[in-house]
Amino acid sequence: LIRKPDSLLSRVTVVLVNTRNPLNIGAVARAMSNFGFLDLRLVRPYSHSFREARSAVGASALLRAAEKYEDVATAVRDCSLVVGTTAAHNRQLQHPLRRLDEGAKIILKRLRTGRVALLFGSEKRGLSNEDLSHCHWLLRIPTREEHGSMNLGQAAAVCLYELAGGSTGDGPAPGKAARKQSRPAAQDGLERITSLLVGLLSTSGYLKAAPSALAEGKIRRMVLRLGLSASDADLWLGIFRHIQWKLGQGK
Amino acid sequence: LIRKPDSLLSRVTVVLVNTRNPLNIGAVARAMSNFGFLDLRLVRPYSHSFREARSAVGASALLRAAEKYEDVATAVRDCSLVVGTTAAHNRQLQHPLRRLDEGAKIILKRLRTGRVALLFGSEKRGLSNEDLSHCHWLLRIPTREEHGSMNLGQAAAVCLYELAGGSTGDGPAPGKAARKQSRPAAQDGLERITSLLVGLLSTSGYLKAAPSALAEGKIRRMVLRLGLSASDADLWLGIFRHIQWKLGQGK
Repeated sequence: LIRKPDSLLSRVTVVLVNTRNPLNIGAVARAMSNFGFLDLRLVRPYSHSFREARSAVGASALLRAAEKYEDVATAVRDCSLVVGTTAAHNRQLQHPLRRLDEGAKIILKRLRTGRVALLFGSEKRGLSNEDLSHCHWLLRIPTREEHGSMNLGQAAAVCLYELAGGSTGDGPAPGKAARKQSRPAAQDGLERITSLLVGLLSTSGYLKAAPSALAEGKIRRMVLRLGLSASDADLWLGIFRHIQWKLGQGK
Repeated sequence: LIRKPDSLLSRVTVVLVNTRNPLNIGAVARAMSNFGFLDLRLVRPYSHSFREARSAVGASALLRAAEKYEDVATAVRDCSLVVGTTAAHNRQLQHPLRRLDEGAKIILKRLRTGRVALLFGSEKRGLSNEDLSHCHWLLRIPTREEHGSMNLGQAAAVCLYELAGGSTGDGPAPGKAARKQSRPAAQDGLERITSLLVGLLSTSGYLKAAPSALAEGKIRRMVLRLGLSASDADLWLGIFRHIQWKLGQGK
């Protein structure tokens, strides 16, 4: 009764960052299995016993297959769209913020051309600014202003329900899918552009101080906002590499 | 940010029948509070300590106000529609079965004229035949056939999200409204970036021959594809100016 073809939903990657409670990891795995999502990745989980979480009823295989990563950049390197989740009531956000139903539509479209990562932060603090700098935009479940903070397992269940087409009832439009789309750049290509730019702007003196996490995050967001296709990403990478080489020559 | 008038959502009664785990009762209470539902009733909860469930983050008042009942009949006596929830994959059902999104629409209509009860059964067995006999019809969250059984707190969160109008798309979209729309860059700003880039790529030797109309057109289209906002256009203009100046210095 999942209404999207398996091949599309299998392109969704759920990334849990700094999750403290193994029960929550298990609960997310269970909801993934309920709605037909299979790819779970964990960035710095607090507990190493998470794979035995009893809350993963019916989803222990999925949980055992989950891969562990040291940082967000590596976990999302093969994804062409990275979406963060946030309660977002009391935060100054530097990203576009989309309501779950709108965001899900965009994600479903993007799945036709590449892998999409959906990030959930830690139970206490959500996603850090560094985590957020890897996101193209943010997703928000419409909750009461007075009580916006959801339980992690429940937030994941609601997001995956919406993504599985729970309420729209429409599947992917085959006519639209047939249209040739330019494939969006994967995250690792964009990350190469970011680090090239950081290096270039630092050696050229555009960044006055040594490159800080702040400056790097700012430049990463700037690059993500470009929404580059894979072929354009290659072009810009070539240009920046050439400039870097040329600047090195001048010394 | 709940899109139905409070008076309507306050007419929904969530009834938990034979719930074993106090953590699950707490989780349901939290989701209710997240989405703006306040009336929780418990039929024969297994544990009497449920009111202290730490999982009810932000919803302890709601949990303390929850009333206890000896049977379903008494718990739903003031409701004009009683809806049961079920995984329903392997059961012979004698009730009409509606998918969550369809069922939610009917419930919302009925709220205009009376109170509606939404029943959740125990974690292991769901609702008994006796419990079901009090229901007008049954609601089912569309899950995978292979793994239909959801965690109680997650099932409740998904149902309440749908009932709160999470995905219907009607009502104000808080995300959109809150986000300050970034003004797109004017064409003259983009043209300045283009000519800067053409000059830069030509003096640095990236363009092998003298800049042709062909190369310029190609670079212009590349810049246009970036879809820059006005403020981002300023940022990139500054970066390219700085690089141009730096390359000039090296000579």
